[in-house]
Amino acid sequence: MNPLAPELDVVRWFNTSTPLTLAALRGKVVVLHAFQMLCPGCVAHGTPQAEKLHRLFAQSGEVVVIGLHTVFEHHAAMSEVALAAFIHEYRLTLPIGVDRPGADGPVPRTMRRYGLRGTPTTIVIDRDGVVREHAFGQVDDLALGVLVGSLVAAPRALPVADGESAGCDEGGCRLPAAARP
Amino acid sequence: MNPLAPELDVVRWFNTSTPLTLAALRGKVVVLHAFQMLCPGCVAHGTPQAEKLHRLFAQSGEVVVIGLHTVFEHHAAMSEVALAAFIHEYRLTLPIGVDRPGADGPVPRTMRRYGLRGTPTTIVIDRDGVVREHAFGQVDDLALGVLVGSLVAAPRALPVADGESAGCDEGGCRLPAAARP
Amino acid sequence: MNPLAPELDVVRWFNTSTPLTLAALRGKVVVLHAFQMLCPGCVAHGTPQAEKLHRLFAQSGEVVVIGLHTVFEHHAAMSEVALAAFIHEYRLTLPIGVDRPGADGPVPRTMRRYGLRGTPTTIVIDRDGVVREHAFGQVDDLALGVLVGSLVAAPRALPVADGESAGCDEGGCRLPAAARP
Amino acid sequence: MNPLAPELDVVRWFNTSTPLTLAALRGKVVVLHAFQMLCPGCVAHGTPQAEKLHRLFAQSGEVVVIGLHTVFEHHAAMSEVALAAFIHEYRLTLPIGVDRPGADGPVPRTMRRYGLRGTPTTIVIDRDGVVREHAFGQVDDLALGVLVGSLVAAPRALPVADGESAGCDEGGCRLPAAARP
Repeated sequence: MNPLAPELDVVRWFNTSTPLTLAALRGKVVVLHAFQMLCPGCVAHGTPQAEKLHRLFAQSGEVVVIGLHTVFEHHAAMSEVALAAFIHEYRLTLPIGVDRPGADGPVPRTMRRYGLRGTPTTIVIDRDGVVREHAFGQVDDLALGVLVGSLVAAPRALPVADGESAGCDEGGCRLPAAARP
Repeated sequence: MNPLAPELDVVRWFNTSTPLTLAALRGKVVVLHAFQMLCPGCVAHGTPQAEKLHRLFAQSGEVVVIGLHTVFEHHAAMSEVALAAFIHEYRLTLPIGVDRPGADGPVPRTMRRYGLRGTPTTIVIDRDGVVREHAFGQVDDLALGVLVGSLVAAPRALPVADGESAGCDEGGCRLPAAARP
Repeated sequence: MNPLAPELDVVRWFNTSTPLTLAALRGKVVVLHAFQMLCPGCVAHGTPQAEKLHRLFAQSGEVVVIGLHTVFEHHAAMSEVALAAFIHEYRLTLPIGVDRPGADGPVPRTMRRYGLRGTPTTIVIDRDGVVREHAFGQVDDLALGVLVGSLVAAPRALPVADGESAGCDEGGCRLPAAARP
Repeated sequence: MNPLAPELDVVRWFNTSTPLTLAALRGKVVVLHAFQMLCPGCVAHGTPQAEKLHRLFAQSGEVVVIGLHTVFEHHAAMSEVALAAFIHEYRLTLPIGVDRPGADGPVPRTMRRYGLRGTPTTIVIDRDGVVREHAFGQVDDLALGVLVGSLVAAPRALPVADGESAGCDEGGCRLPAAARP
């Protein structure tokens, strides 16, 4: 089974007035686009694809596309002020978070949590927070669309009863945790 | 509500040993790609897109992509022998049907039934046979993928009780037709 | 030294009211674009490139771009009526000649004279009728432009004194052939 | 008549061990590619075109292609360290000079001398140092190639007798400057 998506660790957000967390987005399909502003494959393919997907769902809100600036090289060149200029010049409107620098070494924290091989990387997370796709490099538009569309339309998995009190409510009746298999 | 997709009227098939009918494909998502082999927009965008979508679902079979050669001009140039050469040179593997010539006028029959404006036209039909998209011209890969993916994943609509006898069976209980609203 | 370009052998012309011959075009730079209307690489790259080059020099007339329809397969599919429809649909305006069918075998005559390997092939002929480039497959726009531009600007070679009578005229004075080095 | 190209005013060079001046390049065709590393049209079209042209003539040396980083906005984002990373990531090998910041205002000095409207701008200079093309925005590969090729092949203009002493030498005989028209 695919793993639950680790939470984001972001030092600054662009294009959103409130910070985003995957926890708060549970229930929506989330597409993470990990990129670097000086990565040619990102600029040519990945970032425009993420922006297009963001615009496709900007109205409905059923899919949230998040850019994640995961700088692991040329840190001085890809500062926040440089990223701000990049976002302005490329007219990007999707929310973009700056991955928090690592305590040791050049790889930032969210990037390390996800075990990314590099940029661009596309990570697709379903409504239940499960990673359903993790792809390094160029992803075909048609294939990505099919995956995202199917996750939007799919019925949600039954609620997982972790940490909930036993007893009945409108969601159903639960065994006491101790009694669960 | 969107209309039920009219049946195909095809004089010859390529890339399939048995003729296809929408009736027999009920239960699957169907994408119709109406094209002409000498239509520049088809050759550059529509037909490669249809072929790519076909290959994406060739294994699972959940989506059936059908090319429909709807010749409405230059009939002598787009004969069956010419189409056969086109299919060979462009290495097309999706099933392709030749729309039946019209009784009067240059527009073939399936094209007329669907009220197509021209080529390329993309028609997406859900598992229940309902037309969910009818788009003339170039369609974005990402948007098409999202639509197809959502139709693949969506639960089927409840069976429509037309022409069925009243009474109960495992599908439920029906009013007599005369009493229906 | 590169060979003199063999003459064209064409059964029908499109987009020109008078047949073209290389002999009559001596003094101009000529670019031959050998193609087939059902050759994917021609339709996607070669033919649009030839059309663009034609339009670039349509005013000045210093470069004459000629399409040559060299059908060596699928002859029934690439008839003259089919080519006419192709030219119409793709809005081609460069002059296009249909290569004369071979006496034996599928390869037409001009194609054989030039020893073409297939389509598309680009042949660039200088003002003196000498073949300066013979390239099978996709040719880069920038490199083709540089070659054509340099041939347009280059001073013509001195007239080659073959078969000319000795003596003087306005072109100069020649040694008797027997005395030439 | 087109103007003589003003000299470059550059604070730092990349991809060349010795600074370049137009004066020293007199006799060669020079193509200036004015760009900014965060200008989308540069990254997508102009800079790859300049790099390709550079590689086309890297052997012969008859054409010298020079990138000129003319930053007129987002100065903090497009520092020299950022440009160095950009050059590394995009694998650029053409010589690139950083335009000297202006004394007042954001427009750098060479950019102002040339009266550039923005980036990308392509400036083509002939062997005699005369500007033959000054184009803002995307330039067609084929058209650029034709221009460059024609300048490479063209015979040089007769030497311009400016500032030379009167009298005769192997280049000819000149009027005294005072007597010149």
